[in-house]
Amino acid sequence: MREPFAELVGVELLSASEGFARTAMTVAERHLNMHGTVHGGAVFALADAAFAAASNAGRYVSVALAMSVAYLSPAQIGERLLCEAREVHASRRTALYEIRVWAEEGSSGREVARLQATVYRKGERAARPE
Amino acid sequence: MREPFAELVGVELLSASEGFARTAMTVAERHLNMHGTVHGGAVFALADAAFAAASNAGRYVSVALAMSVAYLSPAQIGERLLCEAREVHASRRTALYEIRVWAEEGSSGREVARLQATVYRKGERAARPE
Amino acid sequence: MREPFAELVGVELLSASEGFARTAMTVAERHLNMHGTVHGGAVFALADAAFAAASNAGRYVSVALAMSVAYLSPAQIGERLLCEAREVHASRRTALYEIRVWAEEGSSGREVARLQATVYRKGERAARPE
Amino acid sequence: MREPFAELVGVELLSASEGFARTAMTVAERHLNMHGTVHGGAVFALADAAFAAASNAGRYVSVALAMSVAYLSPAQIGERLLCEAREVHASRRTALYEIRVWAEEGSSGREVARLQATVYRKGERAARPE
Repeated sequence: MREPFAELVGVELLSASEGFARTAMTVAERHLNMHGTVHGGAVFALADAAFAAASNAGRYVSVALAMSVAYLSPAQIGERLLCEAREVHASRRTALYEIRVWAEEGSSGREVARLQATVYRKGERAARPE
Repeated sequence: MREPFAELVGVELLSASEGFARTAMTVAERHLNMHGTVHGGAVFALADAAFAAASNAGRYVSVALAMSVAYLSPAQIGERLLCEAREVHASRRTALYEIRVWAEEGSSGREVARLQATVYRKGERAARPE
Repeated sequence: MREPFAELVGVELLSASEGFARTAMTVAERHLNMHGTVHGGAVFALADAAFAAASNAGRYVSVALAMSVAYLSPAQIGERLLCEAREVHASRRTALYEIRVWAEEGSSGREVARLQATVYRKGERAARPE
Repeated sequence: MREPFAELVGVELLSASEGFARTAMTVAERHLNMHGTVHGGAVFALADAAFAAASNAGRYVSVALAMSVAYLSPAQIGERLLCEAREVHASRRTALYEIRVWAEEGSSGREVARLQATVYRKGERAARPE
């Protein structure tokens, strides 16, 4: 599951299993917006990579239909961002994911963004030849 | 209003005035996802760049609070994507933008994504020294 | 296509055809929230009724997967609210609707809310016996 | 904090404190849509009532800017729906709420809808005369 865009942005895939994935990114100069904080598009890319990994790690070929994002606090250069995407509901053809992004800060962390995403399951993945 | 992240992704800012901006991007290998079509994060970055430009081109310093995106059709490598962000409503402290992305195809175009975005206006921009 | 909830709220269905419907409601005391303006849930019910009518008026049995609403201006008791829901994109199994609500004011109108809604098409409607 | 619209729909306010509220509703014939299941607008009204109570129970006068809802499973006549709205983040002028609706079923419950809502805090409530 190579993702050229995730590589371009510098998103690291920490883990992925059916319905759950974690990604991370360290905010660098190339992730900034005109205000000098992390670009909303970079935060979204981090979240989308976790979501795509979680929703495609198992049996299903899934594509995003709709996503909503709430931005909670800006992140600064040098900060380490962590993201988790988790399937919270599934029916036969669709599923809902909740995705959270936070900045690592000591033991707790500060929330940076929270997303909801609805996928459409196009079908089951063809079994890979052995 | 330099945007390092927009440059990283390859988003071109075609025009920006208070409340309206246009961006463009030609889909390249680096924009792809695991399905071999354009990554949702790349489409979002294109839209977000137009939105940020439109909402910061005038008097106000604006930050995104919430955005929702509906993905309508996938885009392929080599396609030219165009995006328009337009303010559709404003009150004293908040404003709503509508953002559309389509693939240039002959005369008409095929819609790729449609977004709504709510901004918070932090204040008026300090006048620039002459 | 009787809708008990739309009747309870006082939503009038003005017209419905495949992919397009209009509804209306006159704001009464029963529609108010704790601030004395129209309740967000009443505005949503007006929009949802138009959307459900438009997405079920034709061949397809459609159910809402995800909706997002942006509230633009409050409405007052006595105001007449108009709503239009329009299909802006469709693929085989899903479709996107744009829904707008405004308060009738002289010739133009003031926007009250704007929504995006994604439907899943469960299948085609059984032909009615003649 | 009387809410005529919540009363019209039959929403019960179970508890409300600053940043957290619970509501409930028993699905009756008047809450149904054209498919004979609970209307999306009724579920939204239940969620919106909890959200409005939680975001206005304390110091702040808050109004909704944007909400997104994902519908997870339909609910039937006679089912008891429960809802919780919880503030998950706040800055000086805005806050994010997460709202969940489920159908009471034995010990666990089945999720019916999940929402995110962004509020704008217009100001602090005038102290009530003693």
